[in-house]
Amino acid sequence: MLSELKEQVWRANLDLVRFGLVTLTFGNASGLDRKKGIMAIKPSGLSYEKMKPSDIVLVDLAGKRVEGRLSPSSDTPTHLELYRAFRTIGGIAHAHSEHATMHAQACREIPCLGTTHADIFNGPVPVTRFLRRDEVERDYELNTGKVIRERFEKIKPLERPGVLVAGHGPFAWGRTPGEAVENCLALEKIAKIALGTLFLNPSGPLFPRYLLDKHFQRKHGPGAYYGQKKGEKR
Amino acid sequence: MLSELKEQVWRANLDLVRFGLVTLTFGNASGLDRKKGIMAIKPSGLSYEKMKPSDIVLVDLAGKRVEGRLSPSSDTPTHLELYRAFRTIGGIAHAHSEHATMHAQACREIPCLGTTHADIFNGPVPVTRFLRRDEVERDYELNTGKVIRERFEKIKPLERPGVLVAGHGPFAWGRTPGEAVENCLALEKIAKIALGTLFLNPSGPLFPRYLLDKHFQRKHGPGAYYGQKKGEKR
Amino acid sequence: MLSELKEQVWRANLDLVRFGLVTLTFGNASGLDRKKGIMAIKPSGLSYEKMKPSDIVLVDLAGKRVEGRLSPSSDTPTHLELYRAFRTIGGIAHAHSEHATMHAQACREIPCLGTTHADIFNGPVPVTRFLRRDEVERDYELNTGKVIRERFEKIKPLERPGVLVAGHGPFAWGRTPGEAVENCLALEKIAKIALGTLFLNPSGPLFPRYLLDKHFQRKHGPGAYYGQKKGEKR
Amino acid sequence: MLSELKEQVWRANLDLVRFGLVTLTFGNASGLDRKKGIMAIKPSGLSYEKMKPSDIVLVDLAGKRVEGRLSPSSDTPTHLELYRAFRTIGGIAHAHSEHATMHAQACREIPCLGTTHADIFNGPVPVTRFLRRDEVERDYELNTGKVIRERFEKIKPLERPGVLVAGHGPFAWGRTPGEAVENCLALEKIAKIALGTLFLNPSGPLFPRYLLDKHFQRKHGPGAYYGQKKGEKR
Repeated sequence: MLSELKEQVWRANLDLVRFGLVTLTFGNASGLDRKKGIMAIKPSGLSYEKMKPSDIVLVDLAGKRVEGRLSPSSDTPTHLELYRAFRTIGGIAHAHSEHATMHAQACREIPCLGTTHADIFNGPVPVTRFLRRDEVERDYELNTGKVIRERFEKIKPLERPGVLVAGHGPFAWGRTPGEAVENCLALEKIAKIALGTLFLNPSGPLFPRYLLDKHFQRKHGPGAYYGQKKGEKR
Repeated sequence: MLSELKEQVWRANLDLVRFGLVTLTFGNASGLDRKKGIMAIKPSGLSYEKMKPSDIVLVDLAGKRVEGRLSPSSDTPTHLELYRAFRTIGGIAHAHSEHATMHAQACREIPCLGTTHADIFNGPVPVTRFLRRDEVERDYELNTGKVIRERFEKIKPLERPGVLVAGHGPFAWGRTPGEAVENCLALEKIAKIALGTLFLNPSGPLFPRYLLDKHFQRKHGPGAYYGQKKGEKR
Repeated sequence: MLSELKEQVWRANLDLVRFGLVTLTFGNASGLDRKKGIMAIKPSGLSYEKMKPSDIVLVDLAGKRVEGRLSPSSDTPTHLELYRAFRTIGGIAHAHSEHATMHAQACREIPCLGTTHADIFNGPVPVTRFLRRDEVERDYELNTGKVIRERFEKIKPLERPGVLVAGHGPFAWGRTPGEAVENCLALEKIAKIALGTLFLNPSGPLFPRYLLDKHFQRKHGPGAYYGQKKGEKR
Repeated sequence: MLSELKEQVWRANLDLVRFGLVTLTFGNASGLDRKKGIMAIKPSGLSYEKMKPSDIVLVDLAGKRVEGRLSPSSDTPTHLELYRAFRTIGGIAHAHSEHATMHAQACREIPCLGTTHADIFNGPVPVTRFLRRDEVERDYELNTGKVIRERFEKIKPLERPGVLVAGHGPFAWGRTPGEAVENCLALEKIAKIALGTLFLNPSGPLFPRYLLDKHFQRKHGPGAYYGQKKGEKR
């Protein structure tokens, strides 16, 4: 069932490792078949080296396992909450990648300091608040999804395809599992470059808003002209 | 004799290199068969590339070589002291990995700043005191083990599976040699992420204790639900 | 047509990835046949893994595509403006490499702090001004080339084979596409080493001008004696 | 002639690249047959990928080429001066490795902050003074060797097997070309770890002299017990 989605999710999880975003088992990627209402996700705590496409677990949007013998990632309720909240996305990646996690632990949003950032994020990379004690002690993973949703109340998810959960690390998303992983990698690079920029210029250079708009729109806006046009063939 | 343990220890030593934790011959891993009271450890100063499982040296808990033609690691007395002190552990890894060593040299414990840390360490990564002159001049390696033991007087070893020896570097441990190496890798990542966090937020963000408890317990507590349940099959 | 140039440009683009200068599709390299007035450049947004020499697009100096089915890089007008402005160059590389981009985002030129720098750049690595709103909203990529040209009004391009575009990242060039990529790599290393130097010595050590002259001239001056003499055979 | 030495020097040069110490052609290694008074060294500006053992150039201690069709490294006079000055060494490695070069550019010696350092260097890694204008303009490479010699007037070369040339980068040495490259790698690691240590503890923790003595002596002193004893067989 959904063998293509499982293959995509399997590959997305391996790409997290290949891109250096994941150490040991600190990360996971998922994909959603929105029509069927079924999510494919990495099994919990399984080593990436051993994982096969058939190990990918399928759960419905209520969190019930519908296929797979292994337990799904312990972050499953977070992923599900994000799919319920963000109707435009089809893939999610979570990692404890080094530099994005530094910002998440420092509880500092990443301001837009350059065009690398503006190509992907139409504004700062947001940070959630810390979860409260009661939110941690009960339904922790679900509530992690909820504080992200809360932080994005006025933000379109595909205009800021990632977030830093305070004291935890990044979640990124996209239209597909592959896009989610690419955004997770871009977020890591943006976080690393921001760190050095803030060292070299602590007061923060002023990156003009019109330049941010230009870069985001030339890739993602209605008149986007970056990349190959649809229908163009190699 | 104990060929499986020797194989595990051999692999653990190679993993130290594969994970980028060791440069030249600055590191070693060991494993203990607690029933037999015999430790398997890397030979001293031997290059990792040339090492074979049969080169792994066996010594008893008093430090007497019981098998192997090569001298055991010069850190052997440290490993033995830790096995005598910490009855729950079965593997030890030592490295001069870059970021953990930075903290060790700076004599700064690593505060728990996020969930990556909390998944492995139930509190700050401790730093030992410097050894005194007399402790260095006589039985230096044994005394290295003793200052670690002293620092852990009130700490359960598996709740903080690693330590920074002042002016030296990290020792990490676990139930097995493989787990010790994984904890050594996690410690290096935690140290690196902490460094950047302290740059971005020098006053130190407050990572709530209840979040630390949650993360440590969901992986290591009595009701742990991270990873695959025992008996679950692929 | 121009299959050798296309092969060189294809290889230069792959080298950007191999040298770790490019993440995802954030970078491009081009080459010019100055006699024919034709530039070969990477197609826009195409993944490096899939790219073949035959995918390289040919455009004339006015920007008209003369061969290739794919759209050329969206940075094409920047490359063309640089070839029109700098008559001595035959290759250009653009990347968002981490450390050069940190300096570009911080709007800090890279002072010459050592011989690694002096071997390649006969003075600081310049930073452009930010483009104005009107320059961004209309002919953005062309105007990116124009602010670089403006910044180099009194600088010979082969004496400073690279620049940092404010809030964006580095462009580097050379006599050939391969040389452009090498200069892009050297610029990244110089930027990284400068960052650490400024941390260790914030007031900036005084690197003597006569040492800068010596290093640049022994490699690039009329009496250059670095490398193999022309005609010398292996 | 001296084919074994040429092979060793060839391998040492490739190891500089393999260990990540060299970018492009910024580095070189040499070896000396002290009995014959002949040095083997990398050819100037030749790419590492193309170099074969037969490309290694032989010169006598006066700098006259005695074998090889290529020009020797432009740093040849520096190497020769060091071999004349330091009678105990048989190999030299030079690189512009990132972190050692940061310290060299900052003109800051590397204090001994830990046992990784103490295992290799019996005291701080020294920095030379800047060369004067006249020393640069005439016999620059020879004078580079002379300022190193001057700095080591009261230091035994094998007790500090490396130096930082102000505004330039590291030179390291050892009994053989291979040992020189290993010391060059160790110096880079020491430099990197020192950088982070100084960030975490700017006032500088006091690493006790007795601990430095212990570590250096247990590896290099008369009663050294690190590594395998001579005559011990695998």
